[in-house]
Amino acid sequence: MSKILSPNQLRRMPRYLHALKEMKGDNLLYVNCQTLASRLGLNKEQVRKDIATISSLDGIPNKGRDINILIKDIENILGLKNINNAILVGAGSLGKALLGYKGFLNYGLNIVAAFDNDPKVIGQVINGIKVYDIKDIKKIKDDLNALIGIITTPLKEAEQVAKILEDIGIEAIWNFAPTIIDVNKDIIVANIDMASNLATLSHKLYLKHKKDNKGE
Amino acid sequence: MSKILSPNQLRRMPRYLHALKEMKGDNLLYVNCQTLASRLGLNKEQVRKDIATISSLDGIPNKGRDINILIKDIENILGLKNINNAILVGAGSLGKALLGYKGFLNYGLNIVAAFDNDPKVIGQVINGIKVYDIKDIKKIKDDLNALIGIITTPLKEAEQVAKILEDIGIEAIWNFAPTIIDVNKDIIVANIDMASNLATLSHKLYLKHKKDNKGE
Repeated sequence: MSKILSPNQLRRMPRYLHALKEMKGDNLLYVNCQTLASRLGLNKEQVRKDIATISSLDGIPNKGRDINILIKDIENILGLKNINNAILVGAGSLGKALLGYKGFLNYGLNIVAAFDNDPKVIGQVINGIKVYDIKDIKKIKDDLNALIGIITTPLKEAEQVAKILEDIGIEAIWNFAPTIIDVNKDIIVANIDMASNLATLSHKLYLKHKKDNKGE
Repeated sequence: MSKILSPNQLRRMPRYLHALKEMKGDNLLYVNCQTLASRLGLNKEQVRKDIATISSLDGIPNKGRDINILIKDIENILGLKNINNAILVGAGSLGKALLGYKGFLNYGLNIVAAFDNDPKVIGQVINGIKVYDIKDIKKIKDDLNALIGIITTPLKEAEQVAKILEDIGIEAIWNFAPTIIDVNKDIIVANIDMASNLATLSHKLYLKHKKDNKGE
């Protein structure tokens, strides 16, 4: 069973999963699309369509859909049943913040090792994850069977690190550095740019204050 | 001087800023658009157009543009000359990770206090930032003159926290909870959804493995 989801549908799946797990935690057994939609601030018809696309079982009239089965369906679709091991490169401030975050495991990402080139950082253990010398990355990646590489280096090192990850046979890269990395097309890349997101917010706040000041 | 930037141009500004600051750190004084473009993996013509839009001074032939002036121009455009104080609500795993990250100050965001409703967390100090009882949010927000609220609560509390931030007069919300929050239109909202980003990556990896297995 291989459902085709649009990129927008795919983006909503973790939200459904998150909400359904919270409901399960509240000892609920069934949910209808209306409830799910209002909990997530989404359009009801959109939710109905999304859930119909991924559900392996129909809902029960006046009860809704089985929450446990929906969770399994979404985990299946997202490929979360198999936890993927990941290595992180760049144990600076952002890297350490991510190493300290325990939530990624809920989305199938298990960070098993970190790497840096700074002797002051190498050897540190953060949240149980050891920082190794970048020189040893190939061996440790193979030993730990890591498929995903996370880049949290400064911008000027990101391109070089992407190249290293490509060379050692990483299958997917999650890039937090504010640049578009250029690797072999077979490697899956997702970019997340917190700085750009924050800048958009700051800029709007700046324009608002400017307008408010003019109005006075 | 108030330049109008498209959303895409705006999103690229923090990348330019980041690259320019790194170059400044390397003691460079001038840069041309070609160098900037290849450093960031962007199209040269696009960079030329972006930089022309925001520059207050023309470049010098065979030398390029003054890096210090470009940095000031972009900081101006992004409203980063005035650091904005922010409060964070939800000092769980993600909240703590963000409190521990020192990079936000480079983008004009200064987290001055955190809030939670868990007695075990209230009173903790993370990276010099104290976690207060959510009950005291109004007074502390006013005392510290915070304009931005960061939401890092679980999904089911995000909506309620957004309402609190609205009530106490927060001007902008940076939302890390995987839901669209519904507040007064005067409040600026930026959403960042790490889980969706990660899920896209996991899903692609899952499809790739499925395809590879079929091929065998």
